[in-house]
Amino acid sequence: LPTIDAVEADRPIRALIVGAGNIGYAVAFDLSQRSDEVTVVDADERRLARRAGLPRVTTRRADASDAPALRAIASAQDVVIGALPSALGYRALETLIGACPAIVDISFMPEDALALDAAARRAGTTVVVDCGIAPGLSHMMVGDAVRRLESCRAVKILVGGLPAARGGPFDYKAGFSPYDVIEEYVRPARIVEDCEVVVREGLSDLETIEVPGVGTLEAFLTDGLRTLTRTVHASSMCEKTLRYPGHAAAMRALREAGFFSKQAIGVGDQRVRPLDVTAALLFPRWAFDEQEPDVTIMKVVVDGTSGSERIVCSWELIDRYDAATRLHSMSRTTAFPAAIVARNAANGALPAGVHPPEALGQLGMLDAVLQELASRGVRCTAETKRGESR
Amino acid sequence: LPTIDAVEADRPIRALIVGAGNIGYAVAFDLSQRSDEVTVVDADERRLARRAGLPRVTTRRADASDAPALRAIASAQDVVIGALPSALGYRALETLIGACPAIVDISFMPEDALALDAAARRAGTTVVVDCGIAPGLSHMMVGDAVRRLESCRAVKILVGGLPAARGGPFDYKAGFSPYDVIEEYVRPARIVEDCEVVVREGLSDLETIEVPGVGTLEAFLTDGLRTLTRTVHASSMCEKTLRYPGHAAAMRALREAGFFSKQAIGVGDQRVRPLDVTAALLFPRWAFDEQEPDVTIMKVVVDGTSGSERIVCSWELIDRYDAATRLHSMSRTTAFPAAIVARNAANGALPAGVHPPEALGQLGMLDAVLQELASRGVRCTAETKRGESR
Repeated sequence: LPTIDAVEADRPIRALIVGAGNIGYAVAFDLSQRSDEVTVVDADERRLARRAGLPRVTTRRADASDAPALRAIASAQDVVIGALPSALGYRALETLIGACPAIVDISFMPEDALALDAAARRAGTTVVVDCGIAPGLSHMMVGDAVRRLESCRAVKILVGGLPAARGGPFDYKAGFSPYDVIEEYVRPARIVEDCEVVVREGLSDLETIEVPGVGTLEAFLTDGLRTLTRTVHASSMCEKTLRYPGHAAAMRALREAGFFSKQAIGVGDQRVRPLDVTAALLFPRWAFDEQEPDVTIMKVVVDGTSGSERIVCSWELIDRYDAATRLHSMSRTTAFPAAIVARNAANGALPAGVHPPEALGQLGMLDAVLQELASRGVRCTAETKRGESR
Repeated sequence: LPTIDAVEADRPIRALIVGAGNIGYAVAFDLSQRSDEVTVVDADERRLARRAGLPRVTTRRADASDAPALRAIASAQDVVIGALPSALGYRALETLIGACPAIVDISFMPEDALALDAAARRAGTTVVVDCGIAPGLSHMMVGDAVRRLESCRAVKILVGGLPAARGGPFDYKAGFSPYDVIEEYVRPARIVEDCEVVVREGLSDLETIEVPGVGTLEAFLTDGLRTLTRTVHASSMCEKTLRYPGHAAAMRALREAGFFSKQAIGVGDQRVRPLDVTAALLFPRWAFDEQEPDVTIMKVVVDGTSGSERIVCSWELIDRYDAATRLHSMSRTTAFPAAIVARNAANGALPAGVHPPEALGQLGMLDAVLQELASRGVRCTAETKRGESR
């Protein structure tokens, strides 16, 4: 793999964004600020209409499951950014490989995207998956640490996006579908213990952390390691989600009581899936109000050795709602890494194949990505502690 | 009103129990042990079938909303015990007044049963409402204390029925419908503060108490004072429900998120009431397993004065599942007071009219009821502390 010198190339690119949700909008916003030609497609006219008004952004109605239509639109682009709900991500990726030179995906699909690596290589398409904040920036950090370490002992990722003020159902709001939030609580969490991948319940292994300026948060296991369990060797590795205290217990209780079940139950003379009812209830209540501030917190720690030295690499990110652009922090921190990587992938900075985000870190791209993020106001502190290895 | 001498008369009675749920069954069980003639009616054949096999108990299928049928069956009885869900209680009571000499109700109806007092007097029917544990025994205790006090300062009732072991959704199980459990969390709680009736949210004013042999419980406001706000004058008065810690927060969150709403919402192309989905999910999960032990805790404190003396009357009840009879404590403590009062009402111990349970306490019936309960293994400790009034 080549080394990356200039991460953000200057040439304007033609970009297609598939999915006009909050994240897709933020990607479009970011790219359009840089004189790129941006097209946004979505199946829903109303969603597209809300996205109109950005300079250099064209909207087109198309269903992501309509493969010929999607491939036709993609063929005119330098890069496609997949910003679909997780359930639609993999199929769209399969459709797009071979139709355009580069794809960056942030759908958090449940399927194994690396299974498409050979197909992408054959087709000459560069694909970066899981390219948001976590998975995404988190994994680039881990990749960067691994590049500097001879052996890696422990990897820990803590991440959460929250309303800046507590309140509302379960002290939570989300810039995306309750289905995807709940999916994180239902999926078994794959973590690494004693060098083995083990499976734990989502929402388990609760711990409390203090975040300056934010307060006390709780952290619990979710299935966020993704490709890391295969690409990085460490004796322990876990990813935890951050929420206000009490959220995990409430979600566990809802899960145990069946409110997240996809199995239809009889209610009167109808049959409904409890998850659909839960999502229908939470959708309006978990949506941010206009200009309601949110905050994103991420902490990544990689503990390892190089020669006789023990090295602990850590990063901390606290980002907040941006009143100037009216972009929520969750949108900023998820969309900007995707937009930054998309510009580079479009400019040929990466070879063909399906790449997880840690590969970008291992290629030395992290600092350039962090620099680009900082220019957008998303700031990280990085620390490297060195000591004697025991 | 006459004074009561022998609370439990010897003459066998003919009793009709309307509603063959867990409580109705326990009333039938108790009366049938005492050579009484017992009839149980219910709209549901399967529920009736489960109640068959008790000696001296006849089952009959009839809908409680079929007034002529219900009145015809009731006319052959000395007493009718209403053990219907709360939504059906008032209408059945209206139907039965005038059809039989005495009625004891434990449906926890939302309506004001005292509104039927004049009708009951005219018809010559004796009615005791709210005649379970709380409201019921709790109010008899308050009535007994009031009888002994010149002025009453504070009344506090704490009560809860719980599975003996924590676990399952929201650390709770119930011997009755989730609709009735949830109703307690949704109804505004009427309490007395500074001699005025004020309305608080259900599930509010959380406090923690330690119960020996049970552990730490939380107590929160529910609307359990019922008639007491009108029949007893005290500067402060409240009723709180006991649960395992965390239950109230989870229920508040469910309530705020709309899971208890009776307003239908769109789910796909159907319309469903979230409460119906919640009840359908919780019904099987909140039901006790065969022979699963439960525990009932009640604490009643009445603080007042008599002359220059300050008198604090208090009672404590802890009752557990009875393996010998396979009756849950919730059934025992709710059904036995109703059965005991029913035998007395059938024997003409009370005048015509609608009586709240505190009236029985004010008539001096409490000790006799407690004695009967003790003979069934439901034991209370009573304490009276005297000091100087400040």
